[in-house]
Amino acid sequence: MSTTKRKIRVFGFAGSLRKGSFNRSLLRAALEEVPETAELEIFELDGIPAFNQDLEGNLPEKVRKFKEKIKAADAILIVTPEYNYSIPGVLKNAIDWASRPYLDNSFDDKPVAIMSASGGMIGGARAQYHLRQTFVFLNMHALNMPEVIVNNAMEKFDANGNLTDAKTREKIREQLKALVEWTERLKK
Amino acid sequence: MSTTKRKIRVFGFAGSLRKGSFNRSLLRAALEEVPETAELEIFELDGIPAFNQDLEGNLPEKVRKFKEKIKAADAILIVTPEYNYSIPGVLKNAIDWASRPYLDNSFDDKPVAIMSASGGMIGGARAQYHLRQTFVFLNMHALNMPEVIVNNAMEKFDANGNLTDAKTREKIREQLKALVEWTERLKK
Amino acid sequence: MSTTKRKIRVFGFAGSLRKGSFNRSLLRAALEEVPETAELEIFELDGIPAFNQDLEGNLPEKVRKFKEKIKAADAILIVTPEYNYSIPGVLKNAIDWASRPYLDNSFDDKPVAIMSASGGMIGGARAQYHLRQTFVFLNMHALNMPEVIVNNAMEKFDANGNLTDAKTREKIREQLKALVEWTERLKK
Amino acid sequence: MSTTKRKIRVFGFAGSLRKGSFNRSLLRAALEEVPETAELEIFELDGIPAFNQDLEGNLPEKVRKFKEKIKAADAILIVTPEYNYSIPGVLKNAIDWASRPYLDNSFDDKPVAIMSASGGMIGGARAQYHLRQTFVFLNMHALNMPEVIVNNAMEKFDANGNLTDAKTREKIREQLKALVEWTERLKK
Repeated sequence: MSTTKRKIRVFGFAGSLRKGSFNRSLLRAALEEVPETAELEIFELDGIPAFNQDLEGNLPEKVRKFKEKIKAADAILIVTPEYNYSIPGVLKNAIDWASRPYLDNSFDDKPVAIMSASGGMIGGARAQYHLRQTFVFLNMHALNMPEVIVNNAMEKFDANGNLTDAKTREKIREQLKALVEWTERLKK
Repeated sequence: MSTTKRKIRVFGFAGSLRKGSFNRSLLRAALEEVPETAELEIFELDGIPAFNQDLEGNLPEKVRKFKEKIKAADAILIVTPEYNYSIPGVLKNAIDWASRPYLDNSFDDKPVAIMSASGGMIGGARAQYHLRQTFVFLNMHALNMPEVIVNNAMEKFDANGNLTDAKTREKIREQLKALVEWTERLKK
Repeated sequence: MSTTKRKIRVFGFAGSLRKGSFNRSLLRAALEEVPETAELEIFELDGIPAFNQDLEGNLPEKVRKFKEKIKAADAILIVTPEYNYSIPGVLKNAIDWASRPYLDNSFDDKPVAIMSASGGMIGGARAQYHLRQTFVFLNMHALNMPEVIVNNAMEKFDANGNLTDAKTREKIREQLKALVEWTERLKK
Repeated sequence: MSTTKRKIRVFGFAGSLRKGSFNRSLLRAALEEVPETAELEIFELDGIPAFNQDLEGNLPEKVRKFKEKIKAADAILIVTPEYNYSIPGVLKNAIDWASRPYLDNSFDDKPVAIMSASGGMIGGARAQYHLRQTFVFLNMHALNMPEVIVNNAMEKFDANGNLTDAKTREKIREQLKALVEWTERLKK
C-alpha cells in the first residue's frame, strides 16, 4: 500500500495591477517552474480597498479571501515591483490588511520567498530588503538564497509577457526548489 | 514703503485613514506650531484609489488635486504611522501616484520633513527610514534634524486626539522652524 | 540507560570595545539567562585588525580563532551598539573577516539572534535592521521575535554594568529560549 | 580688476584597503573628472585603528588628520564597496571616529556624494542606502542624483585599475558637477 505525500502549497501574489506588468509575468513564469512536490496558487490584488482600521469590523470580502488563502498555505511567494525605491503601495496595503488581527496575522510563521523584476539595473532589489524588514514583524521566515532579481526586464520577456530568458527561468526553478526545502525544514 | 515677504507654503498629509489616528492628530497639532513666516495646508488621503499605471491616462480627480497641491508647495510634511515595520500601504500608494510623470514627479526638488507617532517604543522610526530611501528617487531634500518620533503615543494625546505632551509640542515647533530654514536655504 | 543530549552551543560577541559598554554588559547579563539546554560562550573583538583582502593568505591568529568558534557553534548571538544609525565599524569589520572564504563563510546556515542597547529612545534598533540585511548574504537565519532592544540604558544598568531591570532580564531569557527552539527547529 | 573665486574643496576616501580595489580605482578616476571650479583631495584609510571610545582622550594621529581634512572640506565624496550587503567595517569605523565629539562631529552640515563599484549586478547599491541612513545622524546633506553605481566592475576597469568605460566616466563627471552645484546651493 502506498501513501502519497501531500504537496507543499505555495500561495503567490504580485504587487502590480498593471496588465502588462513584468512582475505579474514573472509570477506566471513561476507557475511553470514549480517542483513536483509542490503546487502554486496565484492571487490578484485588484479590488483590495485602502486599509482603514475603522473598517476591520466589517472585513471586505476580497480581503477575507486573501487572508484565508494565506492562512491555508504552507509557504508564500511575493513578487514585487520596486516603486520609488521601495515596496509598491498596492502590495504593502494588501500586506497591511493581511497582518491585522481578524483571522489573526495570517502570515504568522510562514516561510516566504521574494522575486522582483524591473527595467532598470537594480532589478527591484531595494523593494526586496524593505519587504524583508516587514517580515520581522510579521514573523515570516524569509528564504535567503537564491535571490531572484530580474534587471533589464524588457530584454527578458517577449511582447506577450512570456519569460524568454533561460538563466532567469533557471533561477526561478532554483528558488522554488529552495523554498520547498526551506518549508520542509521548518515543519515542526 | 514695506514689502511683505510671501509665506513659505508647507503641504502636509498623514498616512492613516483611521479617524482616531495618532498620526492625524499629530498633523493637526503641527497646525498650531507653524512659524509665523510659514503656513501649513493639510490634505486627507481618503479616496485615492489603488495605483495602476494603466489608469494614468485618466487621472483620478483626487490624485490630480493631490499632485497640484504638492507642486504648488514650497515644502512637504509627511506624517507617517508605521505598519509592519515600514511605510503604510495607503501612504506609499499616494506617493506612488504623485511620483508619476503626469504633471511630472510632483515631489521633484522639494524640501521635506517627517514626523511619526506610534503606541510602541520605537515611535514609527522604522517607517521614517524607508521613506527617506524613497526620497532619493523622488529627488526630495529631507530635513535631517530634529527628528519627530513620538513613542508611547497613548500617553501623549488625550481622548479627543489633542496633543497634551509639552516636549512633543516643542519638538514639532523646532522641526517646523528647521524645515522653513531648510527651505529658505535651498531656494535657488 | 540514559543518554544526555548535548547542549546547544551559542557563541556570542558584542560590537563595542569600550570597557563600560552597555552592550558588553548586556552580553554578560545574557550569560546568566541561558536555558539549561544550552551554553553561551563569549568572545571579545579587541585585536581584530582592519579587514584587508590582501592579508587573507596570512590570516591573523585572532581572526582564525574567531572563525573557528563561529564554525563550531550551533547558534550565534550578536549584541550590537548603534553608531551613527548603523552597525559599529568594529563589529562590521569582524563580520567581514568571518564571512570570507578562508575556512569558508563561517556564518553559513547558522541561526542568529540580535540584542542591542543604547542610552537613547530607539535602543539600537536601527543597527539591528542593517545587521539583518547582512544576514541575507551571510545565509544566516535570524530569529524574528522577541526582539531585545534596550533603550534608556543608563537607567537599566548599575555603575558596575550589572543589569538591574527585571523586564529586560525577562526579555533576554525569552529571546535565548526562543533562539534555542529556533536552532532545534532548523536542525536537519 | 578681477577676483578669482576659491575652488570648492571636495575631500574623498574609499572604503577598501585592498591594493587592487575597484573602489580605490573609481576614486582615482574621479580625480580626472573634477570640474574646473573644484578640487578633489584623496585620503587613504590605512592605519586607522579600531574605534574605542576609551581612546578618545588620546586621539590617534591618523584620525586627527582625517577629522581635520573633513572639517576643512566644502563637500565629501565617499566611495564604498559593498561587503555583506552593507558598508565595509573599515569604512564605517573611519566614519565612527570622525563622528565623535573631539574636534566635533567633523561631518556636520557637509554636502556629500556616494559612488560604489562591485563585480556583481547590484554594484554596491545596498551599501549606499545604509550610508545614507548614517548621514541623517551625521547631519550630512546627501546628493540624490545622479547615483554612481558601477556593476560588473571587472569589465569596466583594465588590469592596472584604469577606468575604461566611457559611460561610467560620464556618470562620474555628472555627479561631481552636481555635487559642486549642490554645495554652492547649500552655502549659507
